[in-house]
Amino acid sequence: MTTGSIRITSVTITPVAFIDPPLLNSVGVHEPFALRAIIEIATDAGLTGLGETYADEKHLAALHAAATAIVGADVYHTEEIYRRVRAIAAPETTIASGLIGQSAATDRVFSPFEVACLDIQGKAIGLPVADLLGGAVREEVPFSAYLFYKWAAHPGAQHTDDWGPALDPDGIIAQAKRMVDGYGFTALKLKGGVFPPDQEIEAVRALRGAFPNHPIRLDPNAAWTPETSISVARSLAGVLEYLEDPTPGIDGMAEVARHASMPLATNMCVVAFDHLSPAIRENAVQVILSDHHYWGGLRRSKLLAGICETFGIGLSMHSNSHLGISLAAMVQLAATVPNLTYACDTHWPWKTEDIVVGEPFTFVGGSLAVPDRPGLGVELDRDALARLHEQYLSCGLRNRDDTGYMRQVVPGYERMQPRW
Amino acid sequence: MTTGSIRITSVTITPVAFIDPPLLNSVGVHEPFALRAIIEIATDAGLTGLGETYADEKHLAALHAAATAIVGADVYHTEEIYRRVRAIAAPETTIASGLIGQSAATDRVFSPFEVACLDIQGKAIGLPVADLLGGAVREEVPFSAYLFYKWAAHPGAQHTDDWGPALDPDGIIAQAKRMVDGYGFTALKLKGGVFPPDQEIEAVRALRGAFPNHPIRLDPNAAWTPETSISVARSLAGVLEYLEDPTPGIDGMAEVARHASMPLATNMCVVAFDHLSPAIRENAVQVILSDHHYWGGLRRSKLLAGICETFGIGLSMHSNSHLGISLAAMVQLAATVPNLTYACDTHWPWKTEDIVVGEPFTFVGGSLAVPDRPGLGVELDRDALARLHEQYLSCGLRNRDDTGYMRQVVPGYERMQPRW
Repeated sequence: MTTGSIRITSVTITPVAFIDPPLLNSVGVHEPFALRAIIEIATDAGLTGLGETYADEKHLAALHAAATAIVGADVYHTEEIYRRVRAIAAPETTIASGLIGQSAATDRVFSPFEVACLDIQGKAIGLPVADLLGGAVREEVPFSAYLFYKWAAHPGAQHTDDWGPALDPDGIIAQAKRMVDGYGFTALKLKGGVFPPDQEIEAVRALRGAFPNHPIRLDPNAAWTPETSISVARSLAGVLEYLEDPTPGIDGMAEVARHASMPLATNMCVVAFDHLSPAIRENAVQVILSDHHYWGGLRRSKLLAGICETFGIGLSMHSNSHLGISLAAMVQLAATVPNLTYACDTHWPWKTEDIVVGEPFTFVGGSLAVPDRPGLGVELDRDALARLHEQYLSCGLRNRDDTGYMRQVVPGYERMQPRW
Repeated sequence: MTTGSIRITSVTITPVAFIDPPLLNSVGVHEPFALRAIIEIATDAGLTGLGETYADEKHLAALHAAATAIVGADVYHTEEIYRRVRAIAAPETTIASGLIGQSAATDRVFSPFEVACLDIQGKAIGLPVADLLGGAVREEVPFSAYLFYKWAAHPGAQHTDDWGPALDPDGIIAQAKRMVDGYGFTALKLKGGVFPPDQEIEAVRALRGAFPNHPIRLDPNAAWTPETSISVARSLAGVLEYLEDPTPGIDGMAEVARHASMPLATNMCVVAFDHLSPAIRENAVQVILSDHHYWGGLRRSKLLAGICETFGIGLSMHSNSHLGISLAAMVQLAATVPNLTYACDTHWPWKTEDIVVGEPFTFVGGSLAVPDRPGLGVELDRDALARLHEQYLSCGLRNRDDTGYMRQVVPGYERMQPRW
């Protein structure tokens, strides 16, 4: 155990690539590899901490600049670390939300460093990260099954992948059954925006028939106009637990919200603290999907949770393709949030590779137990890290481009938001 | 140093009374003694933690119920402690805000226990409480001079007290000079609502003349109608840094805010998380005076700070008559809040007695250095605690009643809000 101040001596950033199935979404299809950056912070106390984040080239460049800026800081002084990151973070354009301001850019770059600092603090104190956030209020964190339309395999592959195709209601039902049987999920989320709305309504109704007691969510990733969204909301009244990002933008969501009987959720139109004031003023969203990767780490995600509680907004948790470090961070955070009103998202079952030692997480009844080991509760598998870094180097992918990849298969495919 | 989980074994609550000068306000005059409750938490690790709060009888009863409920809890599990306090906290009526809901009542009872738990955590880790809140972003915390109209002495006293009378602009100027000379304050706050508005406008203008470079605030504690408030705001345009609680209620403040050129501040109409949504919707206040005693401790006060930042609201810090434990908690908190946009309030110079060892705080340039000792950075003086508890027992006061005390001197004096 180590106590007293602990200073950062170096930061290592390792981009990795892991095999990703051909999951379909409103802007294309997942490429054969998903990219992540693994952050390791070393300290003068000999303790190290882990973080995980995006690995697109611009983000990697910002991470490297931040890594240089934070050397010498005390791992307990995360406000000072935030200030240093803010000084070098530039506004940037993101797919989901257009131009984001400096605060939002800072939150995205800061996040993995904060997580790593909390990992170190927890190890120093001998307590899980949850205890640095007020302690767990639940022993296990519920997750929802993440159902995707998908191809049988990536183009050019010799064999179908382990999950096979899911391109119609039957395929989705089969996928859901395997998810529920294998992991015990008690809620179901369908990634939509892939097929015309009527087909996805049909799939949701089929899910309702096959799983009459599972809350069901549909997320078309802003593929629809407000009019289409309102029409789908009417068709699925009484069926959906919530409808996630049916249409782009706060104004559009507010228009849909005035007509939809179910709550509207978002991880697209409210993805930074700057978006909260207009969204709340317009009552555009009733559920926010928190994500510590872009909400500035675990403490600022707790701030978001407190804002949701204060303004009567429901809270769920967003996932993108992640490895074990981020899952650990999500679980530690979710354990401490009293008003986590919905089961969290996770891509976990889609992932066939990882960089943490052993299998620290096992879904039971769709939930994960909160690790009680010090820090995040996961350890880096250096062999796996080296292998996935090698895969990053050799795979050739440097930025996520679901649309370009789709265009290789479907010539002329265009990104459209909304599409229907 | 101690690490790993630490469990609460017992809680001691000691009501104390300390000598308070005859400070005038909109509802009467400070009684000869101010009441506080000192909280001591003992743990299985041998570490103890300190908290300080109100000591009115109803609050003391709630504290005792909470103290029983939290024994056995881990000091790192403040969310669980909050949940236990919430289970026994009842909605209550307060002078400032009428009926407050269960959340607000919970926050008031929970606060000193959370502070004591953070004190213990800091001692266990060997770091100041600020480091548990993200670390200090400033080495010293600025405070404003707190100017009061006052009598020369309490009724029946043999001699005038150390400060003498302040019942007109000359008295206020003299008091301000002593405050600025003695402590270096760089901002001035006048507690108003005592005399008709014109007299207080005159005092503020005299302050502006005598201290041309000091930001000046006026706080009549909701003594005015919206019309009077708007008239005063016009008279003092360009003079006041902010106008604090000119009129009662969120609606009234919103009306004044539409006409006032300076920001409106509050520690009366927004004193709980439930008040934030309506106040923000109406743009009723531009500055919130945070106070960890009623905002649920230090972490929830950081939540309030984050909400202020998110919604573009300025942040200052409220004070009521407090002892050294609360001052330490205020300094530790204020040190870590990036968006502390105004110097904090403190009653400190009015206080002639304390229950902490030595003199841990010395104002230099109106600011206090952030203690770098583990925990809050203050230690209980057991002799002083015993003496002030004896004073509590003998003084006969059990609830604060500025109005009743004033009525003893000015027969027929009534509490009126607004008065002018």
